Amino acid sequence: MQKRRKLGRGVAIIGAGMSKFGAFREKIQRDFFVEAFEEMVSSVDKGLDIKDIDALYLGNFSSDVFENQVHLGPIIADWIGLTPKPATRTEGACAASALAFREGVFAIASGFYDVVLVGGVEKMTSLSTERVTEALALATDMSYEGRVGFTFPGVFGATATAYMEKYGARPEHFMRVAIKNHRNARLNPKAQFNASILDIMNSRMERAKKKGEPVPTWKDEWDFLHDPQVNPVVAWPMRLYDCCPISDGASCMLLVAEEIAKDFTPNPIYVTGIGQGSGRPLHTKEALTYFEATRYAANEAYQMAGLKPEDIQIAEVHDCFTVAEICHIEDLGFFKPGEGYKAVEQGLTERTGPKPINTSGGLKCKGHPVGATGVAQLYEIWKQLRGEAQERQVPIKDLRIGAAHNLGGTGGTCTFNILERR
Amino acid sequence: MQKRRKLGRGVAIIGAGMSKFGAFREKIQRDFFVEAFEEMVSSVDKGLDIKDIDALYLGNFSSDVFENQVHLGPIIADWIGLTPKPATRTEGACAASALAFREGVFAIASGFYDVVLVGGVEKMTSLSTERVTEALALATDMSYEGRVGFTFPGVFGATATAYMEKYGARPEHFMRVAIKNHRNARLNPKAQFNASILDIMNSRMERAKKKGEPVPTWKDEWDFLHDPQVNPVVAWPMRLYDCCPISDGASCMLLVAEEIAKDFTPNPIYVTGIGQGSGRPLHTKEALTYFEATRYAANEAYQMAGLKPEDIQIAEVHDCFTVAEICHIEDLGFFKPGEGYKAVEQGLTERTGPKPINTSGGLKCKGHPVGATGVAQLYEIWKQLRGEAQERQVPIKDLRIGAAHNLGGTGGTCTFNILERR
Repeated sequence: MQKRRKLGRGVAIIGAGMSKFGAFREKIQRDFFVEAFEEMVSSVDKGLDIKDIDALYLGNFSSDVFENQVHLGPIIADWIGLTPKPATRTEGACAASALAFREGVFAIASGFYDVVLVGGVEKMTSLSTERVTEALALATDMSYEGRVGFTFPGVFGATATAYMEKYGARPEHFMRVAIKNHRNARLNPKAQFNASILDIMNSRMERAKKKGEPVPTWKDEWDFLHDPQVNPVVAWPMRLYDCCPISDGASCMLLVAEEIAKDFTPNPIYVTGIGQGSGRPLHTKEALTYFEATRYAANEAYQMAGLKPEDIQIAEVHDCFTVAEICHIEDLGFFKPGEGYKAVEQGLTERTGPKPINTSGGLKCKGHPVGATGVAQLYEIWKQLRGEAQERQVPIKDLRIGAAHNLGGTGGTCTFNILERR
Repeated sequence: MQKRRKLGRGVAIIGAGMSKFGAFREKIQRDFFVEAFEEMVSSVDKGLDIKDIDALYLGNFSSDVFENQVHLGPIIADWIGLTPKPATRTEGACAASALAFREGVFAIASGFYDVVLVGGVEKMTSLSTERVTEALALATDMSYEGRVGFTFPGVFGATATAYMEKYGARPEHFMRVAIKNHRNARLNPKAQFNASILDIMNSRMERAKKKGEPVPTWKDEWDFLHDPQVNPVVAWPMRLYDCCPISDGASCMLLVAEEIAKDFTPNPIYVTGIGQGSGRPLHTKEALTYFEATRYAANEAYQMAGLKPEDIQIAEVHDCFTVAEICHIEDLGFFKPGEGYKAVEQGLTERTGPKPINTSGGLKCKGHPVGATGVAQLYEIWKQLRGEAQERQVPIKDLRIGAAHNLGGTGGTCTFNILERR
């Protein structure tokens, strides 16, 4: 039983922004952050003087490798006009900006600061696809995991194989996650893949017809996803459409002390649970089918919030590969171990279902600029809780509680954060 | 006038450790951290159960580049037995672990955690000297500073030239910093250069004699430092002995909530002032001779502590190059602008002087494994305030207040932290 932890001072979110996610080879990291920052500033209902921002926390995985630029914190601070206010980079692989969010919460809860900007950025398309896969693999333990050849498609291929063997799932169960998340991303104009699988299928048929080429005869999305030309195996049973894309983008949000939140907006969103855990490398894990660090993080956040998994009405869950979403909806307690894939099959995690997961399209379709992802997940929850998710707004009547789960590496870093509207 | 900030809950240091600093090509980062951690554990007067540690903050500049390993937090947590407790990496160039220290302070002051391990590590000798200089240059703004050819010797060569022109200092004033810091490092068994300039000079003469080679005729340390064979110009007026070495090593300390500090030791050291600021790239600076971010950080820390520069009895000051120490003792308010070099000349900053600076030997002689430096500076202050600095203990009768200043990049990140014994 973990200790119940609490903060000495409440923290609320009063603004949020994210850049369009996608492949934008002509831009550099600071461009994306400025785009996200401008949306954040304009999202503050009662207006914001940026001079009121006390500090910046910036999540970034490795612009060291992607852009030959370390020490990104003060550069971003300078570009958005915050200098000489402090700027700190946090790194926890693909959970980098969830850590920035957490440090922003601590900085305010400590009483030291009142208004803190948190966010993340990554520009990945500066490298070739092969080099990106290698760069990401630096988030494994290179002495034990990377050294024996594990890259992330391999890690999650192994996870999926273990999951299928233990619980009797089939590759089609993973495909269902992709179909769902594409359907959600279709409603998200900032998503990298702003299209359902059917949209993609139809546009390919349309294109062939226009070009006078032989028109493929896929009869539905399942037929399309089983075509090895369209959806080749990357690392069995993970096929191309089970993997998130390589993305560029940024995200940010403005945190303030609870007692001043209403000075900025009549509709703040409160941070009621925060959790983080760390995990050991694969060769020391008891089983590949669950993530100890996620369970630890979730428990910490639930205890702080005084909530149970069934209280969470909507969640963004780290789906770098489709199998990851299934494992994590179990680790977070939304479904019992071995029941996650059935829940997806039964449509329980659809946007219109009882437990909507990844209404943004998830990493899988919204895109996964790794350092930006943690706060981008929270951005989706912020939008949904404020009823501002437009076409993709979930049809839940009294939507008050949402959460975001972010994973780094092979499970080395996991976070779970709970947000509430009051 | 900056706002006076305070923490909602006091924080104390109850243990500290650092590895020997130096060039240890056969080791990897986790080895250094374990060495520092073991000393920290044994330094806790009333003993420590490591199960009581709630979280880890780890400063690291770029093991991404140095060791092809990102996501170091959970790896280090695993190696010291902390998993599944959270582990977060902070990065602010050469100030990386000062940021880890600060986040540990916030995590406790927030009320969320009670016992937090903070530290830093860097293994730099895995690359050649030329590649290390290139890797470090990634901490400049690569779009504006690095792109026009600035590496750090160049940055501080330009700083020194500007300083000489503005205030009339001569290269010998910088040399005095090296002489002082070498003399201090002679008394520090963990220092990379555990020898005074005279020791080095004499041992070279001894070696020549033994080998039957012509014995050089240096008559004193000044003569030695003016020999272009011994002390070539690296970036005018910075010569070899004005530059810190390339180093490997780790440091850590254990922070706890003030109210439980006495459960661990009768002699805790309290964190009474914390400060951090950020700076803009060189081409936008008003002058090269001072660091805006240091001034901001210092002001923040002094205000919190309710102290003035003259109250600080001893300090570690970021001396990556000798000129940096001179600029920063001015920026910290110890001496007026343009008076720092005279203070050094007058011996005011000697270990036995009225304002001892860098009793550890500083980065210049103790070594500068960049990610480990911030907490290693605080380690020296901890040792001095507890009267445990052995041979290098300063002869100040009622030593109660010390501070450490850490710099990242070309001034992008600066921190200043004040510690007190009660």
